[in-house]
Amino acid sequence: MKKIGVGLIGTGYMGKCHALAWNAVKPVFGDTPDIALVHLGEANEELARDKAAEFGFARSSGDWRRVVEDPEVDVVSVTTPNKFHAEMAVAAFRAGKHLWCEKPMAPDLGDAEAMLEAARQSGKVAVLGYNYIQNPAIRHIGRLLRENAIGRVNHVRVEMDEDFMADPDAPFSDKHEAASGYGALDDFGVHPLSLITTLLGPVASVICDMMKPQERRKTGDGGEREVETYDVANVLIRLENGASGTLQLNRAAWGRKGRIALQIFGSRGSILFDQERFNEFQLYLTSDRGTEQGFRTVLTGPQHEPYGRFIPAPGHGLGFNDLKIIECRELIRCISGDREAHIIDFETGFRIERTVHAMARSFRDRNWIDVS
Amino acid sequence: MKKIGVGLIGTGYMGKCHALAWNAVKPVFGDTPDIALVHLGEANEELARDKAAEFGFARSSGDWRRVVEDPEVDVVSVTTPNKFHAEMAVAAFRAGKHLWCEKPMAPDLGDAEAMLEAARQSGKVAVLGYNYIQNPAIRHIGRLLRENAIGRVNHVRVEMDEDFMADPDAPFSDKHEAASGYGALDDFGVHPLSLITTLLGPVASVICDMMKPQERRKTGDGGEREVETYDVANVLIRLENGASGTLQLNRAAWGRKGRIALQIFGSRGSILFDQERFNEFQLYLTSDRGTEQGFRTVLTGPQHEPYGRFIPAPGHGLGFNDLKIIECRELIRCISGDREAHIIDFETGFRIERTVHAMARSFRDRNWIDVS
Amino acid sequence: MKKIGVGLIGTGYMGKCHALAWNAVKPVFGDTPDIALVHLGEANEELARDKAAEFGFARSSGDWRRVVEDPEVDVVSVTTPNKFHAEMAVAAFRAGKHLWCEKPMAPDLGDAEAMLEAARQSGKVAVLGYNYIQNPAIRHIGRLLRENAIGRVNHVRVEMDEDFMADPDAPFSDKHEAASGYGALDDFGVHPLSLITTLLGPVASVICDMMKPQERRKTGDGGEREVETYDVANVLIRLENGASGTLQLNRAAWGRKGRIALQIFGSRGSILFDQERFNEFQLYLTSDRGTEQGFRTVLTGPQHEPYGRFIPAPGHGLGFNDLKIIECRELIRCISGDREAHIIDFETGFRIERTVHAMARSFRDRNWIDVS
Amino acid sequence: MKKIGVGLIGTGYMGKCHALAWNAVKPVFGDTPDIALVHLGEANEELARDKAAEFGFARSSGDWRRVVEDPEVDVVSVTTPNKFHAEMAVAAFRAGKHLWCEKPMAPDLGDAEAMLEAARQSGKVAVLGYNYIQNPAIRHIGRLLRENAIGRVNHVRVEMDEDFMADPDAPFSDKHEAASGYGALDDFGVHPLSLITTLLGPVASVICDMMKPQERRKTGDGGEREVETYDVANVLIRLENGASGTLQLNRAAWGRKGRIALQIFGSRGSILFDQERFNEFQLYLTSDRGTEQGFRTVLTGPQHEPYGRFIPAPGHGLGFNDLKIIECRELIRCISGDREAHIIDFETGFRIERTVHAMARSFRDRNWIDVS
Repeated sequence: MKKIGVGLIGTGYMGKCHALAWNAVKPVFGDTPDIALVHLGEANEELARDKAAEFGFARSSGDWRRVVEDPEVDVVSVTTPNKFHAEMAVAAFRAGKHLWCEKPMAPDLGDAEAMLEAARQSGKVAVLGYNYIQNPAIRHIGRLLRENAIGRVNHVRVEMDEDFMADPDAPFSDKHEAASGYGALDDFGVHPLSLITTLLGPVASVICDMMKPQERRKTGDGGEREVETYDVANVLIRLENGASGTLQLNRAAWGRKGRIALQIFGSRGSILFDQERFNEFQLYLTSDRGTEQGFRTVLTGPQHEPYGRFIPAPGHGLGFNDLKIIECRELIRCISGDREAHIIDFETGFRIERTVHAMARSFRDRNWIDVS
Repeated sequence: MKKIGVGLIGTGYMGKCHALAWNAVKPVFGDTPDIALVHLGEANEELARDKAAEFGFARSSGDWRRVVEDPEVDVVSVTTPNKFHAEMAVAAFRAGKHLWCEKPMAPDLGDAEAMLEAARQSGKVAVLGYNYIQNPAIRHIGRLLRENAIGRVNHVRVEMDEDFMADPDAPFSDKHEAASGYGALDDFGVHPLSLITTLLGPVASVICDMMKPQERRKTGDGGEREVETYDVANVLIRLENGASGTLQLNRAAWGRKGRIALQIFGSRGSILFDQERFNEFQLYLTSDRGTEQGFRTVLTGPQHEPYGRFIPAPGHGLGFNDLKIIECRELIRCISGDREAHIIDFETGFRIERTVHAMARSFRDRNWIDVS
Repeated sequence: MKKIGVGLIGTGYMGKCHALAWNAVKPVFGDTPDIALVHLGEANEELARDKAAEFGFARSSGDWRRVVEDPEVDVVSVTTPNKFHAEMAVAAFRAGKHLWCEKPMAPDLGDAEAMLEAARQSGKVAVLGYNYIQNPAIRHIGRLLRENAIGRVNHVRVEMDEDFMADPDAPFSDKHEAASGYGALDDFGVHPLSLITTLLGPVASVICDMMKPQERRKTGDGGEREVETYDVANVLIRLENGASGTLQLNRAAWGRKGRIALQIFGSRGSILFDQERFNEFQLYLTSDRGTEQGFRTVLTGPQHEPYGRFIPAPGHGLGFNDLKIIECRELIRCISGDREAHIIDFETGFRIERTVHAMARSFRDRNWIDVS
Repeated sequence: MKKIGVGLIGTGYMGKCHALAWNAVKPVFGDTPDIALVHLGEANEELARDKAAEFGFARSSGDWRRVVEDPEVDVVSVTTPNKFHAEMAVAAFRAGKHLWCEKPMAPDLGDAEAMLEAARQSGKVAVLGYNYIQNPAIRHIGRLLRENAIGRVNHVRVEMDEDFMADPDAPFSDKHEAASGYGALDDFGVHPLSLITTLLGPVASVICDMMKPQERRKTGDGGEREVETYDVANVLIRLENGASGTLQLNRAAWGRKGRIALQIFGSRGSILFDQERFNEFQLYLTSDRGTEQGFRTVLTGPQHEPYGRFIPAPGHGLGFNDLKIIECRELIRCISGDREAHIIDFETGFRIERTVHAMARSFRDRNWIDVS
């Protein structure tokens, strides 16, 4: 493939992130095909035109279907609100396009299944935007686990915490409506599950508790309304490999801004990671001499793929947006037919979402649920 | 009271810790009654005599009953293995002595209840050795919570991890037998519960999962034996005050040496603490200006009671053994009739142990259990 | 200005960094003029052509003079080895171009002065590549200092440490020759000085010590050669504002990868920063209540300009390359006539280099030197 | 020796610290001679009597000479203000007593020399109270250096910072008078020098800068007075072993409470330590695999002598006062004739103080000074 034609739908937080990645992937990696920014779709013509100028796209439309059907478009980035993913994804696959879709697939599990089915039938590349797995630190942790560096893993803990829902005086919003989902569980849960799945394999069984830090919130009209979603979720899990674990999710955790804290315990060592300091990880090895055993804080560098494509010096630090550039590179590898690309496809993504829904059911039923 | 006569039973890890505290409490605090180290009991006469010489006790016996019955003894420190606590405690109360008993009260809940009953009938002081609550950092966190510094607490997480059971090649030992208890759950669980109870009040309901990192271990005779206890325990909890929480216990967590990590989230801020760095805590307050909000690392000092009794300069650091000296001081306050002393008595201690047993039941039954 | 025509000379570490910035600055910031990547120059035609394809430049040349003279080029990025800067800069100014030149200006102070003179005469924008000052954390620290948040600054310490010269078995290389400069002093020193100058103003007097961790190194021919540069430099400094300080530079400091640690002490508080964790800074304020005073770890976010142009969520982290994008944005502001742009121009840059040479002299003479 | 008779002069911060150590040393270590607390001296009879009761001493006097001359006293702890050390020390040696004297020896170098001479003539044990060297972490760092774990040491940095003089509104006090010494230089400098000397050997040459964060302070009578001492001191040093280094001292560093931060760089690794977290140290080794090299945070435990005498479990933490107990133990080893005891005697202590005075001279003369 000499050139990849790109369509982009949506220009919010993740839309901009995709646009930055499409602009940077060739200058960073060098050895990719040329990238043609073909067609940008937004909710109306004017916004589409403005954003196309900013992001460097050749054409723009106020109707996303024009993007999907553009014959020069090879791959479509879908970055719209989650509820629109299914319709757009199915249309893109039917138009014979590859798809780069933001996670989660869809709020409704049936919709997600339809997306999976459409992907299978199309035979096209279908990649979900789980960017945290692209971090060179996380990829190196995966390598260490495959090398058996810390022995057999028997226990894992993941916490994901932010504080954007913590203010008790913030008014009632969409995110507080049941229609938006369960709350922290689906809003956050898919991220830790992407890490667990990539590093340790699938989840086998779950039991979840959820709670509302704030029961009621003020509405714009001077009244109050009951909050319908849960900002806190805690889950006991068992993995298929036999390990036990916990998942802790809190979007009302004052002081946490982008925490995804990972603790992995094995028979010969331990690994720690925190997304708030994502250019480093910690490693404890029992093979070190006893009097000097301790967690090593390892700063990522060119030895940790593909850090060196960005910066030749270690310890200088990648940024959040760089993870999306790496993801874009892996997507291109998929499109080029590389089976070793490091991504989460729709098969794995669907499994992750099924797990989240099982957690919600275990909370409702107050019982352990097998994910199968 | 002009002088307190002390009896000590047991001279292991905790026995030495009590002995150090009894020696130091007056030089450190100054304003306590005189302490007379009267009588030390151990398993045999020789060991008792040697330890009495080391620890400065006037008399020694190979029979603990002689200590309990010594008329010059006012208070008995019981630091023997847990299974002996009940008999010794009941005897001490019957002999009209105050009691300073290491936690937990007893492996068997019935025994613990008998101890509680004996304490009630005696009217004597009955203090359990929950030293972590004596840390000036923890006591100051309690003050902050009472002052409502972080608003209404809605979520708490406690992790307690060490690695003394982590080596897969270590042979089968007592701690692997069911007779020793459940495993991490009761071995560790009482400590985090002492902190939760002291800071946030009692636990209302629980569901627990436990697992064995190592299913079988080598025996001395060249064979193998199935491990009967669980080195890992994870618990979802609800507190009576409505907060949700988790308890995570792992005595096979490589790299963790004395971790008790506490995270408390409220409507106006958050508090963090880790026992491995117990001379500091972290505080996030939403009352700080937005552009400079962040977790403050506060080093304890003379402003945090009773740090200043040990060292007049802040940030110089107390040690683990110093916590026992503070506990001893609080015990003496109890004996002196001070109702404000900061301790865990047998009422509260029994509640903690009942909670642990409820957790074990919830694991067996795979169901939520109300603690009541 | 509707469009900015860009010329780039050099495609190494910093050349790529400039290329990435020129590609990203419009998608990130949105409100800049269009960027036209016009002409790339490298040492030979083939390399120039390949890199132009990678970085998205329209034209390429094996002769840098062609870039400087290209009429469609408005601004030239000079990223070649330092010894070439002077000739290229002077030529660019004479051709009426704006200049974005990597630091330092030149190894020889006379050359640097000639560059400054050419810049003055041209009246064109002349910006040096001091990217660390562009970090939102550093810029916010600057704001705090201007607001007098920590009172009068009386003391500052800066350490800059890496370990790329630490291996005693690495062979003799260019960096060990006196022709390459003094060693850590000029290789590193300009960075800390860019921070000190930006945050606290100019240096008034200095005394420096330098040393060689490794006196001799192996040469390719099986022999040995004396190392002529100093990997370690320590400097006592006084600032014009009266504060005292130290500068510590070590490019043979095992374990340090990109450390630039800053400690600023004032009459009402302190500020800490470390480039290895550059998405956070620490702040101690005496206006906090005494019992909760501590260093706050503040994670940067949209409140710290211009973080929000990259990511709308706090604590998600910028990368090293993002700092260059911000620098590019500030350069564009300069070109657009904005006098408030946050950059280091040739006047300030020359002062920094004069300070470095004064330090070297103070080492040679073993005496304090006034920088004036 | 079956029993050691102890005299104590002074009951302030350090006096209490000695008293605690004398009470605890036998219960902690077990295998020492019996300790008899014989005679306590204070400025007046009443205070002496009260403190003797608190600290467990048999006798008390309002005249320190009575302590020194008490025939049952074998060793005298001198913990009075520094200006009294010389007279008391000389008297104690003349009375044939061993001496445990707080550091520094004396404000005046001539007095210190007289103390050294008296010690030599008496042949008695003369130990200075440099407790930081007793930390198991520091002692283990010493072992690592002797083992050549990080290769040849070429660079060292020590910072000692507290903030008790930082408040610009605090009134003029004794510490601001020239009669109290130079300021941070002698108040703090001896501690870092005790660590450098113990770990790396003597200092060869120095150049120092000092400054006053606060030029004038309010006096009690409503006036103002010029501050005569320097709260900040920075020193460039060269060690006799060829390494370069820096010493940075600040007793007006807001937020620092008990910081003594040590950075040691060698040809094969690095070691870091901070007294504010003194139960851990950090170690970087180039012998670790390249992709996992990082600073290990090692928590001290029973493997680090003599931690295990206090607590059998690692990571539980010693306190500041425990360091004095270890020092007391080493003093007793000296008295028992053990030549391997880990202490700083008067010979080494005098060298440290000579180095401090050389630093002050180098500031006055604005020149490098050889310490010889």
